[in-house]
Amino acid sequence: MGVFCVLFAILLFCTVDAPWEKAENQSVFPFTTFAFLVGAATSMVSGLIGMKIATLCNYKVTAACCDDKIKGFKIAFEGGQVLGFMLVGLALLILEIIILCYKPAVMNSISKDAPIAVQTETVRELFEYVSGYGLGGSTVALFGRVGGGIYTKAADVGADLAGKVAKGLPEDSPLNPGTIADNVGDNVGDIAGMGADLFGSLAESTCAALVVSSTCLEIIKTPDAIYFPLVITGCGICVSFISIWFAHLECFGDSYTVDKRLFWQVVVSTLLMTGAIIPPIYMLPDTMDMNFGGNSYTATPWKIFGCIAMGLWSGLVIGGSTEYYTSNAYSPTQDIARSTKYGPAPVIIKGLALGYLSNIIPIFCLSATILVAFKFAAMYGVAMAAIGMLGVLPIALAIDGYGPISDNAGGIAEMSGLEETVRERTDELDAAGNTTAAIGKGFAIGSACLVALALFGAFITRVAGDKGANVSIDILDPMCFAGLLFGAMLPYWFSALTMSAVGDAAEAMIEEIVSQEASILAGNAPDHEKCIAISTQASLTKMIAPGCIVILSPLIVGMVFGYQALAGLLAGIIVSGIQIAFSASNTGGSWDNCKKFVEGKKLSFDDGKTIIQKKMTVIQLIDGEQVEVTTSTPEHAAAVVGDTVGDPLKDTSGPSINILIKLSAITSLVFGSYIATYGG
Amino acid sequence: MGVFCVLFAILLFCTVDAPWEKAENQSVFPFTTFAFLVGAATSMVSGLIGMKIATLCNYKVTAACCDDKIKGFKIAFEGGQVLGFMLVGLALLILEIIILCYKPAVMNSISKDAPIAVQTETVRELFEYVSGYGLGGSTVALFGRVGGGIYTKAADVGADLAGKVAKGLPEDSPLNPGTIADNVGDNVGDIAGMGADLFGSLAESTCAALVVSSTCLEIIKTPDAIYFPLVITGCGICVSFISIWFAHLECFGDSYTVDKRLFWQVVVSTLLMTGAIIPPIYMLPDTMDMNFGGNSYTATPWKIFGCIAMGLWSGLVIGGSTEYYTSNAYSPTQDIARSTKYGPAPVIIKGLALGYLSNIIPIFCLSATILVAFKFAAMYGVAMAAIGMLGVLPIALAIDGYGPISDNAGGIAEMSGLEETVRERTDELDAAGNTTAAIGKGFAIGSACLVALALFGAFITRVAGDKGANVSIDILDPMCFAGLLFGAMLPYWFSALTMSAVGDAAEAMIEEIVSQEASILAGNAPDHEKCIAISTQASLTKMIAPGCIVILSPLIVGMVFGYQALAGLLAGIIVSGIQIAFSASNTGGSWDNCKKFVEGKKLSFDDGKTIIQKKMTVIQLIDGEQVEVTTSTPEHAAAVVGDTVGDPLKDTSGPSINILIKLSAITSLVFGSYIATYGG
Repeated sequence: MGVFCVLFAILLFCTVDAPWEKAENQSVFPFTTFAFLVGAATSMVSGLIGMKIATLCNYKVTAACCDDKIKGFKIAFEGGQVLGFMLVGLALLILEIIILCYKPAVMNSISKDAPIAVQTETVRELFEYVSGYGLGGSTVALFGRVGGGIYTKAADVGADLAGKVAKGLPEDSPLNPGTIADNVGDNVGDIAGMGADLFGSLAESTCAALVVSSTCLEIIKTPDAIYFPLVITGCGICVSFISIWFAHLECFGDSYTVDKRLFWQVVVSTLLMTGAIIPPIYMLPDTMDMNFGGNSYTATPWKIFGCIAMGLWSGLVIGGSTEYYTSNAYSPTQDIARSTKYGPAPVIIKGLALGYLSNIIPIFCLSATILVAFKFAAMYGVAMAAIGMLGVLPIALAIDGYGPISDNAGGIAEMSGLEETVRERTDELDAAGNTTAAIGKGFAIGSACLVALALFGAFITRVAGDKGANVSIDILDPMCFAGLLFGAMLPYWFSALTMSAVGDAAEAMIEEIVSQEASILAGNAPDHEKCIAISTQASLTKMIAPGCIVILSPLIVGMVFGYQALAGLLAGIIVSGIQIAFSASNTGGSWDNCKKFVEGKKLSFDDGKTIIQKKMTVIQLIDGEQVEVTTSTPEHAAAVVGDTVGDPLKDTSGPSINILIKLSAITSLVFGSYIATYGG
Repeated sequence: MGVFCVLFAILLFCTVDAPWEKAENQSVFPFTTFAFLVGAATSMVSGLIGMKIATLCNYKVTAACCDDKIKGFKIAFEGGQVLGFMLVGLALLILEIIILCYKPAVMNSISKDAPIAVQTETVRELFEYVSGYGLGGSTVALFGRVGGGIYTKAADVGADLAGKVAKGLPEDSPLNPGTIADNVGDNVGDIAGMGADLFGSLAESTCAALVVSSTCLEIIKTPDAIYFPLVITGCGICVSFISIWFAHLECFGDSYTVDKRLFWQVVVSTLLMTGAIIPPIYMLPDTMDMNFGGNSYTATPWKIFGCIAMGLWSGLVIGGSTEYYTSNAYSPTQDIARSTKYGPAPVIIKGLALGYLSNIIPIFCLSATILVAFKFAAMYGVAMAAIGMLGVLPIALAIDGYGPISDNAGGIAEMSGLEETVRERTDELDAAGNTTAAIGKGFAIGSACLVALALFGAFITRVAGDKGANVSIDILDPMCFAGLLFGAMLPYWFSALTMSAVGDAAEAMIEEIVSQEASILAGNAPDHEKCIAISTQASLTKMIAPGCIVILSPLIVGMVFGYQALAGLLAGIIVSGIQIAFSASNTGGSWDNCKKFVEGKKLSFDDGKTIIQKKMTVIQLIDGEQVEVTTSTPEHAAAVVGDTVGDPLKDTSGPSINILIKLSAITSLVFGSYIATYGG
């Protein structure tokens, strides 16, 4: 990761910063490159701290669960809290420091009496330099999400399938050499990857808001109004502090279950946040004229409030819809579970259809949010909607972090041979986390869409600044339409590469596990290292190609075909990618919960007729003797096939698309000036 | 279908034609409605004749195969030829008649001395009326593709899965009550549906070319230049007549296999067609000024030749790429077959990844074609590229029709208890057809993309005509972007509905087959009628919702949010839909051929190490006795799961997207004037 970041920094230095091309009165300091490196370092440190916290917490959760479930919950959730507040706080703090340091250096190059056009131009340049910070964060997220996703799912799928091929080795047991790689992967993908992803979203949406607001004269003239996006994120941190208190309430007794605690976190924080954003809007000037794409939009503080609130509540609705489609408490997933009696094929067909169907509500919400925010305040509105959706990020991260901590706590309970009740308790914690984590996943994707659109807007603002006119991006321009079509294909290409990577690495993992089978059954210790090496190797080598697609495609298209083609490309990536991301994540989530439904205690459906069993007893001939053997029922086997197929969809290709969407947009923004000057 | 067409005709009559709103000197004849009904009727008649021909041919093929394979091939291919020439000839003839009848009626309303602007306006109106013909054809295709797809795959998936659940009933045998529904479905979906789809493409691309060329003064002034698109289709018919001769050559003896005969059809016809389009280009004026979307493009006859040739050859490359990804002669599908040893999950993961990956080459080709054609001659170039891609349609249809004919011939051989060699021969014919049919499927999708874009262009021309200016569709307009995002979601919604329809109907089918099991094993005849009724019922009721999405979404979006939103919607449907269509078709095709690979004689891979068997012998306990039983190997079972999942993807949801793409675009065009006047 370090090597890649240094190479990329050199590229930035030579193209975007290019000190030898600076005017005489400009500072030759490589602002963008430095911000990029700081962003990358911050993101890496956050991921590292996150993983440390998770590994420190998970065995404590196991220990606490020996006494009481709620005690375990509190420790796991506290782990998540540390992760959430640390990540958001760090992102905001460092961003603030960068702006404060850069401001005098950049603004000194112009005199105080410079015409207002020069001043706004310089402010925009300042924030474009700062955008390097978002680029750095997202570049690290690329490694976390894509590499982490390949790592964890290669291990997971491999270990699961090996359980079938190598009959002697049970799944999830320390005897299975893939188990450790699977557990390590949970931390890499779900903690470091997810954290870096949302860290990137936050940094990027703030940078986008700063860049687009720099063209608004009223905001520039009003003291501190430009920092409004940072204030909103700050409000979110305060609101989250208060909401957290609701997770630890004791006054409701046992009826206040883990599920309810997590659910109320999300609702209470959203409600509080809606109120908390009212005072800061008085920072803004009374009217703001936004010019964008040849049209003029007049925003008011209350319209900006509307944008933020739309983003905030859309996030909640998207989360709720994800929950409905993926939780096994509702009919869509139960319907798939019912299909298990016809074998794996209907499970797959219905699961894919469910994922496609689950796109409808989120896309309705996002379209409405974009329409309203855009009408209210052009791209500044969209950027503020994104910041609104990420408003209660500390809570979302706390819940997301809580999931893998309790998941690993269960693994530790299993491997250390604790009583069955302990494992049952950790399983309940994990199940609650899975359900609520779906909400987090839903709005990670939704916010990625808004962030990317805002960055897209900032890129256009950038190009318009260079071309010196109101640029319009015409769908009916051949370059633009071809770019749109090509861009819509990129998420497929990207997903194909990540999914094949998981498939191939999983097969290598199976071969390794099977080759160790005889030795392990003879009493030797399993060689976990080899399996970890396979996952590590696969995640490092197989992410080069998808990484290149993300970074190079906007650069090549922009340089060769010009900014119209690049604008089409970005729009295509956003509108097509978001669909795959939602459907892949939800399909996978639903299959996962469908398997849990079949495995759990809910063996019969509401209609009381259909009953699905996990295990069945058959009589087999072994060495000529009739032996009673307990095996999976065909229904359970069908559910497991669904779950295994869903693994790469929900944890590798689906969430990676977030990165593709955002990173291609911010790359275009950061290289925007270079592309506008030399491209096409 | 009749009821729906009449209702839709009434809607057209009341909105688009609205005789009571006509100016005094205009004819009150409901041109659009009449053209719509003629188009629908022509398409229905074509489908009906196609199915008649297929059912007349297939038993003859079976009989001929008792003697010789090539004899069978010739009869099957002749059946396909009749279908191809009849369909294309009929489409062209009726279209020509409509134009000839409408022209005097419409043109009479203006005087010969009217200013040129009024004349071009009237010509454009004439061709917009004619576009009703394309709309009619595509509406019927909606029933054929969506309804037919649900019909055939409900039966196919149901009968396949029942073979597993109801152990006493073998697959594909007359004892299985689902078999007849499956065979009927092959004719409904593959002959009538595919024919209506391509009939629609041809009619629509011609209408689009006519509408967009009507704004070009030079073309209007040159006698007969406007009929150029029809002449190209006519050339295609002549070229196909000559190419057909190559299928029946005897001089090469046995080395000229069925595969080669079909392959050379495609190549020879494309080569001949490239030459055949040169003479007609001299019909065109020396320079043509095309205005579109605020830009001006100067076309020359040779540029138009370039557009047509780009379309023609892109179609071939797309077909070749489809072939590479789906045929089991190449590594992608063989790689999936190799994964069968790890169970169904890797087969599904790798198959999905393969489908995604298979998008790359077609999208490259289409983007390049659009870019070049657009630069050469704006939307007229795109429409001509679409007509070029459909240039050798009679050959494509002949090959496509040949497939189900030989498939059914095999079914007849099986059911009538003929010798095994006969079935082997028909299977070989079928396999060759499958491979080459992939080419046809690939360019049906590719042409749908170009046709839809051309229709989109015609719609914009229409709107520009009404708004009286060069309209630009700005991606940065909030309406347009929200429309784009929403439009990109529609193919997912549509696919979800069609796939669930297949899943649900297949489950009803299994229940029915299982409930008949005891009765059939006791010697009673299976009740085929009930299974046919289930398929019929499902296809009729379950296509209402997808049908409504296709027809209503452009109308509602256009009326409520205006033409900018509608333009975004159409662009979104095209760029996102095309990706799902390619990937779903190719994933399904690859799984189908992967199963055939495992079942066929190619049991060992090239590396000579891996050998996959279809059947294995195990010792089971039945009533306390040890009995040797032959069952599927796990590898074969995994391949069957892939094939079953692929069925709705490749034959229901994938090809249906074609209809979604084209029908929403032509609906917008036909209602364009109404939307421009009353919408938004």
